[in-house]
Amino acid sequence: MSGSVLRTTYHAVTDAPEKLARAIAIEQTVEVPEALIDERIDKEIVGKVEGVSPLQGGRFALRIDYPASLVHNLPDLLSVAYGNVSMLEGVRLAELTLPPEVLGRFKGPNFGIAGLRDLLGVHGRPLLCTVLKPRGATDEHFARIAEEFALAGGDLVKEDNNLLDATSEAAERRIALCAGAVARANERTGRNCLYFANACVPMDRLERLVAATLRAGAAGILIPPLLMGLDVVRDLAARHRIAVMAHPSFTGTFFEDRRHGIDPGILLGTIFRLAGVDITIFVNHGGRFNYRKPECQSIAAALHAPLAKIKPAFPAPAGGMTLERVDEIAGEYGKDTVLVLGGALLGGRGGLAKATEACLARLRGRETERG
Amino acid sequence: MSGSVLRTTYHAVTDAPEKLARAIAIEQTVEVPEALIDERIDKEIVGKVEGVSPLQGGRFALRIDYPASLVHNLPDLLSVAYGNVSMLEGVRLAELTLPPEVLGRFKGPNFGIAGLRDLLGVHGRPLLCTVLKPRGATDEHFARIAEEFALAGGDLVKEDNNLLDATSEAAERRIALCAGAVARANERTGRNCLYFANACVPMDRLERLVAATLRAGAAGILIPPLLMGLDVVRDLAARHRIAVMAHPSFTGTFFEDRRHGIDPGILLGTIFRLAGVDITIFVNHGGRFNYRKPECQSIAAALHAPLAKIKPAFPAPAGGMTLERVDEIAGEYGKDTVLVLGGALLGGRGGLAKATEACLARLRGRETERG
Repeated sequence: MSGSVLRTTYHAVTDAPEKLARAIAIEQTVEVPEALIDERIDKEIVGKVEGVSPLQGGRFALRIDYPASLVHNLPDLLSVAYGNVSMLEGVRLAELTLPPEVLGRFKGPNFGIAGLRDLLGVHGRPLLCTVLKPRGATDEHFARIAEEFALAGGDLVKEDNNLLDATSEAAERRIALCAGAVARANERTGRNCLYFANACVPMDRLERLVAATLRAGAAGILIPPLLMGLDVVRDLAARHRIAVMAHPSFTGTFFEDRRHGIDPGILLGTIFRLAGVDITIFVNHGGRFNYRKPECQSIAAALHAPLAKIKPAFPAPAGGMTLERVDEIAGEYGKDTVLVLGGALLGGRGGLAKATEACLARLRGRETERG
Repeated sequence: MSGSVLRTTYHAVTDAPEKLARAIAIEQTVEVPEALIDERIDKEIVGKVEGVSPLQGGRFALRIDYPASLVHNLPDLLSVAYGNVSMLEGVRLAELTLPPEVLGRFKGPNFGIAGLRDLLGVHGRPLLCTVLKPRGATDEHFARIAEEFALAGGDLVKEDNNLLDATSEAAERRIALCAGAVARANERTGRNCLYFANACVPMDRLERLVAATLRAGAAGILIPPLLMGLDVVRDLAARHRIAVMAHPSFTGTFFEDRRHGIDPGILLGTIFRLAGVDITIFVNHGGRFNYRKPECQSIAAALHAPLAKIKPAFPAPAGGMTLERVDEIAGEYGKDTVLVLGGALLGGRGGLAKATEACLARLRGRETERG
């Protein structure tokens, strides 16, 4: 294949790897029987099988290159690299390497790790994020949590993904009240704790919500890209100078069956960065969910890895993390990590402020250790 | 629980069904440890476990009711009924019953089965749809396919989901040319073959594409809701009088593992209808993909079933269907079905027109049989 290519590897359960590889190369590009593919289209459009090789457990690695000229944007990328493969039994997108020609079409996150650190004025240690919940509590209750956390030195406050409002007005009231409370705390501390508003809203309310979020002085939004649409997120991040925290709601089906779906590092790492995500929340191993350590680490690695001019982003292990695990998590993921502690801080001994301070002391302790 | 409820049943692999059911009821609503749930919030917000019962194979059915007051729109529904459950191993959303209070918040498809039949002027038999492909062919080639199919009496022409353009201009050129060719054919036949343009495009090009589609006289769009965003589709259908044909790209991860994900009838049937889908394409059993007959039938049943004032929609079995299977498919799904034949018609013996006519003769034959 002449010209640059989008390089993929699928891991597949199959007893006919060459045949399956050719079928995928056709499925993802022209989707017609072989007899209808002429020489020019085969050369210019159809994916090229670059090789198949056996893996452990009777699976095969199928390497397929697609012409970069087929991929102009995020929906194209999702469609060509995975789209219909999602309906093939026992096939997983395991590797994805994008050429500069394709990467150059993406802006990526507005802030990334360095940009968010500059906004916050916090360097050299993991960041601490808390969550406004439970749904059903009053806005004033949420504002008190936000203010207390910010006064105690916390870095990021996000609304819970379950804070789903009946109207734009209800969302805007909470955002103004809570982001306002954080701003007051920031005036007292001289710090710059950042607020993230939940943007899991209908499309006809989304622009208004983002505008209200920025007007309230909040840094950005919490949004579930797989529930709302990956390109919805990219488009928002391209048009507004907002920070984006991605929520993993609706992502689990890609990972449950390890012989199917998409490698978590590709989807929650590389693709989320292309969609403009600054912070990717994922369910950490050992919490309320059964994710595995290497999978979590592959997400963090993909968020941190060089990717043309696209800024690195923060991994944010979450999902039932406890104060006792702060050192372990910080040690595992390194300084460029956001620790999400919701229930653990809210229910912490001595109250939220004390639990926040204790947690931050541990994170600062690590900073000293590492210089 | 007072007031109306959203009724769910999850099928779960577990040895502690009561505990898991309560955990899900909390996870989907308030997401805090038990100790942080006060009496009012437990009563008004947290899901209610209505019962657990054993299933075959060591699984359990967990029945959970959520207050209808938590669900105001499609993102809310996706979030409450499934969202974080997607990250729980071995849990599948198996049943979903929406109360009138929630259903009343949705418009559903603009046309539905009766509306599309009226547009087409075709009643009493399954509809025939063909596909413009392969990617890489010229617009003029596609226009010839479209015209030939329409002249031969075909009902629906859709662009292939792989027709991904570099620019809006390229898409608009093809749509104008091909929808124009169909319009010319319609003038000659006195029929009204409908054209569907591929709307798998970046968000910043979507409005323009829909406008160009309607301007060209096309009936609507082909769009992959799980790739583009379910609420993106709902919002488009709410604002424009377009017919929506849903493509299953990116849906496969919900169904691959039968102990996880969402029942295909709920996602591709009920939820797609709420999102405004008039025709749901799915990969039929016995084609290029390994879907099972009861799963395909559950999709068709959910599309046809009464759902408050929301119009029924067409199931469209696809994915490597052949002319030989036309009678079988029409027999299985009944008259309110769209048969999608791409490669089979394009590569049909005697050419596209003859294959189209032969296929339509069979479908009309069934109409006579059934009166």
